Amino acid sequence: MALEIERKFLVRSDEWRVQVQSRELLKQGYLTSGAACSIRARVAGEQAWLNIKAKRSGMTRLEFEYPIPRADADEILSELCNGPLLEKYRHRIPAGELAWEIDEFLGANAGLIVAEIELPSEQAQFTRPPWLGEEVTDDVRYYNFNLALKPYREWV
Amino acid sequence: MALEIERKFLVRSDEWRVQVQSRELLKQGYLTSGAACSIRARVAGEQAWLNIKAKRSGMTRLEFEYPIPRADADEILSELCNGPLLEKYRHRIPAGELAWEIDEFLGANAGLIVAEIELPSEQAQFTRPPWLGEEVTDDVRYYNFNLALKPYREWV
Repeated sequence: MALEIERKFLVRSDEWRVQVQSRELLKQGYLTSGAACSIRARVAGEQAWLNIKAKRSGMTRLEFEYPIPRADADEILSELCNGPLLEKYRHRIPAGELAWEIDEFLGANAGLIVAEIELPSEQAQFTRPPWLGEEVTDDVRYYNFNLALKPYREWV
Repeated sequence: MALEIERKFLVRSDEWRVQVQSRELLKQGYLTSGAACSIRARVAGEQAWLNIKAKRSGMTRLEFEYPIPRADADEILSELCNGPLLEKYRHRIPAGELAWEIDEFLGANAGLIVAEIELPSEQAQFTRPPWLGEEVTDDVRYYNFNLALKPYREWV
């Protein structure tokens, strides 16, 4: 278990692309996304995880993550998940002790790019790169389980 | 992942008690129990598991089970589970290649005792011991996640 403290932003330009250190394709789906918690299966290459998140306060979440067999994840994603799967390229950009994760969504969420930073505390300071746009940490539309149910391309 | 094929019965007497080989105290709660699947955390002694079950057909379920740290399970049970926790003694009685698991519920489900047998196929034959009562495999009231929401003592 860990406390996850994360802030989420839109990007205002493509300048971040030249800073990318690594990139992976993530595919994920949600077994549930109720009031208490969301439960997600995710695959990246040959690896897979089951993840439980519960909102605590503001930008802080309880998070539990467990590696599971890739074959299990495939079956969970195809048989048990609500709504279409979410696919995105996750790009990693180091930022001192921290790192930006830039998610470029595919499929029904194509066109959406968000930048996330995980912080050691809610008050932690970090440098805002010039390509960083509006903060959307508290905008529930950008929660990944909501993007699975109501994708970006269907927003009016 | 495994297919779980299980039949569930009431017991008609206490004769099963002399056949018990081992017993453990289980404590469990449900993160979700929707139409698609139920997700359970369970602790037994110092061990703990996360379990996903989805109904397939009749007495067959898809089942995924993963060991998790006991401390995680405690936190999941206390923070994320719906309704009160389910507590039961699980007694094991060998039956040739198979085994009876007899669950004696505690707390709000005290008084309820059910016997379960896991089978290699839906058609598999097994010997019915004299203490075995009515079959309740298809009675949703006896699903453990329903016993958490509407315990036996509240049945009229």
